Amino acid sequence: MYSLPEQPEAIPYVTSYYEERWGFCLTDNCRKKLKPGQYHVFIDSSLTDGSLTYGELILPGKTEKEIFFSTYICHPSLANNELSGPAVLTFLAKWLTSLENRRYTYRIIFIPETIGSIVYLSNNLQAMKENVVAGFNVTCVGDNRAYSYLPSRRGNTLADRVTLHVLKNLHPDFVQYSYLDRGSDERQYCSPGVDLPVVSVMRTKYGCYPEYHTSLDNLDLISPEGLSGGYSVLKKCIECLERNEKLAVTVLCEPQLGKRGLYPNLGTKKNREIVKDMMNLLAYCDGEHDLLAVAELIQKPVWEFFDLVDQLKQHQLLRVVES
Amino acid sequence: MYSLPEQPEAIPYVTSYYEERWGFCLTDNCRKKLKPGQYHVFIDSSLTDGSLTYGELILPGKTEKEIFFSTYICHPSLANNELSGPAVLTFLAKWLTSLENRRYTYRIIFIPETIGSIVYLSNNLQAMKENVVAGFNVTCVGDNRAYSYLPSRRGNTLADRVTLHVLKNLHPDFVQYSYLDRGSDERQYCSPGVDLPVVSVMRTKYGCYPEYHTSLDNLDLISPEGLSGGYSVLKKCIECLERNEKLAVTVLCEPQLGKRGLYPNLGTKKNREIVKDMMNLLAYCDGEHDLLAVAELIQKPVWEFFDLVDQLKQHQLLRVVES
Amino acid sequence: MYSLPEQPEAIPYVTSYYEERWGFCLTDNCRKKLKPGQYHVFIDSSLTDGSLTYGELILPGKTEKEIFFSTYICHPSLANNELSGPAVLTFLAKWLTSLENRRYTYRIIFIPETIGSIVYLSNNLQAMKENVVAGFNVTCVGDNRAYSYLPSRRGNTLADRVTLHVLKNLHPDFVQYSYLDRGSDERQYCSPGVDLPVVSVMRTKYGCYPEYHTSLDNLDLISPEGLSGGYSVLKKCIECLERNEKLAVTVLCEPQLGKRGLYPNLGTKKNREIVKDMMNLLAYCDGEHDLLAVAELIQKPVWEFFDLVDQLKQHQLLRVVES
Repeated sequence: MYSLPEQPEAIPYVTSYYEERWGFCLTDNCRKKLKPGQYHVFIDSSLTDGSLTYGELILPGKTEKEIFFSTYICHPSLANNELSGPAVLTFLAKWLTSLENRRYTYRIIFIPETIGSIVYLSNNLQAMKENVVAGFNVTCVGDNRAYSYLPSRRGNTLADRVTLHVLKNLHPDFVQYSYLDRGSDERQYCSPGVDLPVVSVMRTKYGCYPEYHTSLDNLDLISPEGLSGGYSVLKKCIECLERNEKLAVTVLCEPQLGKRGLYPNLGTKKNREIVKDMMNLLAYCDGEHDLLAVAELIQKPVWEFFDLVDQLKQHQLLRVVES
Repeated sequence: MYSLPEQPEAIPYVTSYYEERWGFCLTDNCRKKLKPGQYHVFIDSSLTDGSLTYGELILPGKTEKEIFFSTYICHPSLANNELSGPAVLTFLAKWLTSLENRRYTYRIIFIPETIGSIVYLSNNLQAMKENVVAGFNVTCVGDNRAYSYLPSRRGNTLADRVTLHVLKNLHPDFVQYSYLDRGSDERQYCSPGVDLPVVSVMRTKYGCYPEYHTSLDNLDLISPEGLSGGYSVLKKCIECLERNEKLAVTVLCEPQLGKRGLYPNLGTKKNREIVKDMMNLLAYCDGEHDLLAVAELIQKPVWEFFDLVDQLKQHQLLRVVES
Repeated sequence: MYSLPEQPEAIPYVTSYYEERWGFCLTDNCRKKLKPGQYHVFIDSSLTDGSLTYGELILPGKTEKEIFFSTYICHPSLANNELSGPAVLTFLAKWLTSLENRRYTYRIIFIPETIGSIVYLSNNLQAMKENVVAGFNVTCVGDNRAYSYLPSRRGNTLADRVTLHVLKNLHPDFVQYSYLDRGSDERQYCSPGVDLPVVSVMRTKYGCYPEYHTSLDNLDLISPEGLSGGYSVLKKCIECLERNEKLAVTVLCEPQLGKRGLYPNLGTKKNREIVKDMMNLLAYCDGEHDLLAVAELIQKPVWEFFDLVDQLKQHQLLRVVES
């Protein structure tokens, strides 16, 4: 029997693998109420050969290069540390499906943790190594207490760069973990020889809140605000990746903006800011730095430049070097 | 009519480009004294096709490699933010002309800002890209309140290294700006595809003092001390560049200084320091680091090693690997 | 006559090179007791051509690659700043001799400082440049006041990495010097063109304690604790080097530890730590990082992984990529 004396109203979540044994999890209060005596135990379960089932959604894009999302489905009774992942990823998949012009192909999977990702990798490793440019392990995205980032093993992949850029700009007080703190499917995705560029984007990380792995990790713990925060950060990462490319200015020296109609007529503060952003874009788009790197140099969120990039492309002042 | 209510005795400097319009700049006090009524305006000016004139001085040296200086001449009524530049650069040119053995060729230009540098680049870009090893935009070198450095776009060119070395050693409290703070001709010299190694060395930077772009940026603001400070820093940069080279020690292990007459007879504090400097030079001149880098490693101004380098060359203990 | 008014009971250690002169070192108290008058001086010495004698011990290992140790023997009356070096190195040599399976060859020399290392290099440079992977200058390893590290000229050699790892983990309050503070035979071993990976591991560094170069640097200053501390750090460096190699995990994804008998049956805190260490080893041994680098990534002493590496090799989960 497993209970938690310090959390007398919580039922612990205890697992045992690869060994035939059994036990009961219950609240400590319930345990204390049990009267001494003999109990009959009936376990309504069976041990038979089964199969491993997982969900997979491939949304094709203009290129074969892929953005990868993975979430796990093995203990859905826990709310933040599990159900939030499939929930948020389902809505992301719906939104991605609705997009008409996806640049990247999207690979989205719903698997049991650990064994599921290992099985999935054994079926798809070669294609994923060739195509995945950034990947995200989606877990613990339901509560509203923190934003968290756990890097890939190498720590400097495109997935790391875009996640850091988004969190730094949207939620500068986010918690940064180390790969030493890992505990989910990045353990497989980033293992030597697999080495996919996969990070974890979370609200409050597994193992870092008192309700973790107890019956208190329930629907009271998560909230629409919590889930929508997780959803928004991941959506922003996708938007940044879809727009990220290496751009180069097509003219030498600063172009004359006035005769191209790019110089605002009114000298408002907003307009001065737009001109400054435009000049900075033209100063840093050198064909070597991608747009994410340019935005980091300018110290502004990359999404504030999307409209300007469109305008400058229309006027043939920026051209794509590598996308 | 343009005036500054907060600086009632200052006439603002207001410009308008590429549009046919007019206005008057005046002090706010003067404006307040104007009586209501109709005024006749007479603008003693004409709008005709003209030409762009600039000054250029090429001082040949032993190599075709060039040090480049640029200053602007478009609004000389302003003292720190303009006239100081041509003034200091004229004196630097005089001093450079007087040098008998210039290693580098010097390209010195006096141009109108922005349009002048663009025109000059369109005429000389290829030669400059091949030959310029370091360049300096000379502006705001007349007041006596600060020393300032604005890096090149890449930030790690020889011009950046020598300027940082000189300012760190002569004026350790100098103000370091970012390329995001740019506002003068480095905007053209460092633009993608041009990419010349050009920095700005200044006293108080344009835009960073209250008299900027008003009639108060006049001869009262600048001073002999201010101008000579700007002159001295740039001269020191030139001296360091002229002496910078990759040196390698010619013997294995520390040479015996005594039998070469390099060991001072008197054990004074000064002499102990000289021996230490000499041993450090011999320890770090490995043919990989240039003299500037060696001085940074030893944490002393590079000019304190010039005499020692001469001595050690004379005794065949140092040889030039690359100059 | 040389005495130290501020240390009236200390006899200074004064040397003069390459010049025929003489002098007496004595305590300042003794000097003050001397009565005025004429003294007869008898110097029981002779100036004749001699020879330079040094001790050399080569202990062959499985590979020709070498670990190099050097200590000096020119003024053995001083205890910390000299005799401690030969003493500790003698005991290290004894221990090394007793090892049955040395991976590396060991080159151990006892030389007079400066001239001895120069002579030794002139006889052995080529072989040493080819084979030495890490070297240690052993000096001032006798007192019990501090641990000190003086880097090689380049600062990032294997000798630097292992010394920093050992001191950081065993004596985190160790004193880190710069190569600018050098003053012993690393001056020759690290000179340009010689460039051996040699560091100095010390207790209190020469020149940094009041008894230095006086008769007070005697057997009272050093102690069994001091000497054994110096010995232990150097021994630990050797043990880490002998075990350092590039390892790669042989399977993709995390291996199942249970069926290999690698998963502890008891869930004690100690066992959980062991599993964590094992998983971290498997996560970071990617064939690119050597074991020292892996331990730095895991932020634990490398020696805590030696047994685990053996176990994982036995189970064919780790293989040697480069040793």
